Amino acid sequence: MPTGRLEAFSDGVLAILITILVLELKVPHASSLEALHELGPVFCGYVLSFIFVGIYWNNHHHMLHTVEEVGGGILWANLHLLFWLSLVPFTTAWMGENHRAPWPTAAYGTVLFGAGVAYLILQQAIVRKQGPGSKLRQLVGRDVKGKLSALLYAAGIAISFVSTLPAQALYATVALMWLVPDPRIESKLGK
Amino acid sequence: MPTGRLEAFSDGVLAILITILVLELKVPHASSLEALHELGPVFCGYVLSFIFVGIYWNNHHHMLHTVEEVGGGILWANLHLLFWLSLVPFTTAWMGENHRAPWPTAAYGTVLFGAGVAYLILQQAIVRKQGPGSKLRQLVGRDVKGKLSALLYAAGIAISFVSTLPAQALYATVALMWLVPDPRIESKLGK
Amino acid sequence: MPTGRLEAFSDGVLAILITILVLELKVPHASSLEALHELGPVFCGYVLSFIFVGIYWNNHHHMLHTVEEVGGGILWANLHLLFWLSLVPFTTAWMGENHRAPWPTAAYGTVLFGAGVAYLILQQAIVRKQGPGSKLRQLVGRDVKGKLSALLYAAGIAISFVSTLPAQALYATVALMWLVPDPRIESKLGK
Amino acid sequence: MPTGRLEAFSDGVLAILITILVLELKVPHASSLEALHELGPVFCGYVLSFIFVGIYWNNHHHMLHTVEEVGGGILWANLHLLFWLSLVPFTTAWMGENHRAPWPTAAYGTVLFGAGVAYLILQQAIVRKQGPGSKLRQLVGRDVKGKLSALLYAAGIAISFVSTLPAQALYATVALMWLVPDPRIESKLGK
Repeated sequence: MPTGRLEAFSDGVLAILITILVLELKVPHASSLEALHELGPVFCGYVLSFIFVGIYWNNHHHMLHTVEEVGGGILWANLHLLFWLSLVPFTTAWMGENHRAPWPTAAYGTVLFGAGVAYLILQQAIVRKQGPGSKLRQLVGRDVKGKLSALLYAAGIAISFVSTLPAQALYATVALMWLVPDPRIESKLGK
Repeated sequence: MPTGRLEAFSDGVLAILITILVLELKVPHASSLEALHELGPVFCGYVLSFIFVGIYWNNHHHMLHTVEEVGGGILWANLHLLFWLSLVPFTTAWMGENHRAPWPTAAYGTVLFGAGVAYLILQQAIVRKQGPGSKLRQLVGRDVKGKLSALLYAAGIAISFVSTLPAQALYATVALMWLVPDPRIESKLGK
Repeated sequence: MPTGRLEAFSDGVLAILITILVLELKVPHASSLEALHELGPVFCGYVLSFIFVGIYWNNHHHMLHTVEEVGGGILWANLHLLFWLSLVPFTTAWMGENHRAPWPTAAYGTVLFGAGVAYLILQQAIVRKQGPGSKLRQLVGRDVKGKLSALLYAAGIAISFVSTLPAQALYATVALMWLVPDPRIESKLGK
Repeated sequence: MPTGRLEAFSDGVLAILITILVLELKVPHASSLEALHELGPVFCGYVLSFIFVGIYWNNHHHMLHTVEEVGGGILWANLHLLFWLSLVPFTTAWMGENHRAPWPTAAYGTVLFGAGVAYLILQQAIVRKQGPGSKLRQLVGRDVKGKLSALLYAAGIAISFVSTLPAQALYATVALMWLVPDPRIESKLGK
């Protein structure tokens, strides 16, 4: 089975996710600058989640570039990734409205952790399908960056119960780390 | 008429459906773990519906792979299927908020039943259009699995009025039954 | 400019429209059958609008099949059509909640009328662009059906102020009239 | 990397944006004409934003037509543009509900300004990537129109604090200015 429709469906889900995030940015009734100010934490969460979904789209894009055909395993591993990402608008809104509370901050990290692990599983499924000499395998190597991210998310979840700001800063750090598209893949593809 | 735009439209609708399901997961005002706990039944319904839409996307994907051209009948049979699926977010939310009530549980099953029957009708329309020696016909045979699913949904609807948990367990059983992409098609396509 | 991206964008908008219609089907708090019963008029409006958007997608699909390239005029005529269709969820919800009130019923018809006229304008723009011997022109002829629909919508709007049920019945009649994909185009394309 | 998936993702986001704008058009509870009348300012904002998103889709469409391959820089410049556009439903709703208040009007202009600047950055990224003799560079020249728009948005933001109506009129002027697809590109492409 060619990858066309898998890409189209994933693009659709990611495009919708990144767009409905804004629906959680509730329009204030007041028209003052203060009303906008109170939205500050929600807005920061919005920006962070927008970047995260953007990063996933970007990396997903790069990863599928190395794939020629997909089977049932990859289809479901992909849906599993989309499942975790589909929860992002929910945890973004919850953390945005309760940015000093441990549970929402931990929940936000949990969804990122789930998505990160799901991405690694999808990557593994593709590598297994491609067999020895896998193109993707050669490009990502041991994927230290992917595994480090999952570790940092886990650390962020734990830190949430001590103090929320450092946990959120940790999540933002992972985003910054990925903001540039994967140079390992880019460089080896000669782009 | 080629199948390209039918696939694109169906993919679009299914991608949106699977994503707006999350909008029914109302963000709690409280920031405690209990607030998240109360969402338990709604969340379970969310997961189940996510899997169902994923299954439909998967099977739809496989089915249309055997189709080369579509006519008016198939277009409308497809829209009919999308109609039933479009009701999933509504019944998911209703059952999630009233998971011990018979009517919402029965309504959830009714929409699944409707979608299941609509899928069989679409399949039939394709088989008829392909004529004798239909590729799809050879692959699905008498489609015992599809017909059994409809039967199980119907049983679930009836059981809802006795007790809701077994009815919901029955729906989940059908989901598990389909979680693996159709081996009849996969095997014969040599994938 | 090829039609690919115009089709993709239109498909996207129509797929989203047909799907977010369901968001106006507010989940009742009660879990009784009566709660579902009260949704009756809203649900009927939902079904009708779903069919209308389906018809537009279907006809749009057929129409663009005759087009090879698009210019600025067609792009904007298409956006104009999408604008009217984008209002369908709003008027559907308003009429659904006030199905015995003249203004919502007239507003529903007005949006249908606007979409109908926008469709005729888009058709005209394509015919003009294709020049003499236009493929689309030969297929739709004087488009009696399209013009009759606009007339029936206008009649429905007027009738809304006398009694709403006949007006709604008139809208449903137009939907039935179009439910079958345009035989003029189908037949001549030999499908 | 070919532009296909970038176009598909952008089309998806823009199609969703233009469609969810309507969700901010809250259905009135009353069924009178007055209820519709009160929506007047929100509706005008809706029309204006629909046109703006339409213009961006149109110009984006034209711009990417000159591009053959994209790299990381262009991907992120494109996401940056989509970020600003994703805020349009929010500011449209806020301004619509408070059309005589300076801050919402200024916020609406700020998002337009941000999107305008992001468009110029994306254009610049493409020109840089295409190197000397850039096809896009030849078509847009010094892009006086794009820069003038940003200037007019900035003026609109400032004027918001004096009086909101002229500021909104200024935004509408920019929309009118762009309503026709870029003749510089169209003409040189011989279309």
